[in-house]
Parts: sequence; structure tokens; C-alpha cells
Amino acid sequence: MRATVLVRPKQGILDPQAQAVENSLRQLGYAVHGARIGRVVDLELESDDPAGARVQLQEMCDRLLANPLIESYEIELHGGT
Amino acid sequence: MRATVLVRPKQGILDPQAQAVENSLRQLGYAVHGARIGRVVDLELESDDPAGARVQLQEMCDRLLANPLIESYEIELHGGT
Repeated sequence: MRATVLVRPKQGILDPQAQAVENSLRQLGYAVHGARIGRVVDLELESDDPAGARVQLQEMCDRLLANPLIESYEIELHGGT
Repeated sequence: MRATVLVRPKQGILDPQAQAVENSLRQLGYAVHGARIGRVVDLELESDDPAGARVQLQEMCDRLLANPLIESYEIELHGGT
């Protein structure tokens, strides 16, 4: 089962990389604001059970993929193997 | 209009960060493979027109957000302003 995890900085956490990107985009003439940059992690799990896969992914996020102090995460499961 | 851009390494491009994450997950006991790591960029655009916003975002990706030689991107628009 294929999964996508989106890890983003929590609201209120400074995001200097996004600030730099936003400044560059504005200099290029694009009217943008509120930029935030996070990570996207794609994984293939051996489990076929969506509920079990989701529990496993939450554990992986808490233990390794995200820093729960400053990042939030979102899990998307893509059906079938 | 809020937009999310997912930037991922193209197939065949080495992704050592993902390899390291995959190895660590396996050492923690998770049966995963095929890990890939990219970036997620959230932006607020001033445009209200979805078609125009998409064209602008494609331009931003080609010019700044992604490296088209080694990365592919996916644009998601979230309705409303």
C-alpha cells in the first residue's frame, strides 16, 4: 500500500526557507504570500490494511519522520497494492 | 486562492535522504520500501481565477520552485480565497 506523508512546520514556527522563496517569487513579479515549506515523504508499506497502515504511519511520524514539537503531519493512503 | 505544490525527485534520480530514512524505518521494525522525499510548498495567491493561478504556478515551478532536470511537480488548488 502506497502512502504519502506531508510534514509541515506548525503555525507560529518561523520558516526562513519559505520566507526566502516568497521574497524571490515576489521579486519575480508574483503576488504571493503566506508561503510555508515542508516535506513530502512517499512510502510503500507491506501492510494491506488501511487502518493498520495508518496507525503504523502515525507511529513512524512521531518517532522519525516529523518533529512533533514544531511540525504537524498529514497522512494520505493510496488504495491497492 | 490557496495552492499546494508537491516537488519530488524524478524516477531514476538518486535520493540518499530517502534511502537513509528508509533504512532507519526498517531498523525500527517497519516493513517499508520505495521511499522518496520531496518538498511541499504552500502558497496563497492573490489571483481568484483557477486557470490563471495554475498557469502562474507552473511558471513559478519552472523558474524557482523545482529543478525541472531532476524534479517533477504536482499542483493542487484549494477553492475559495
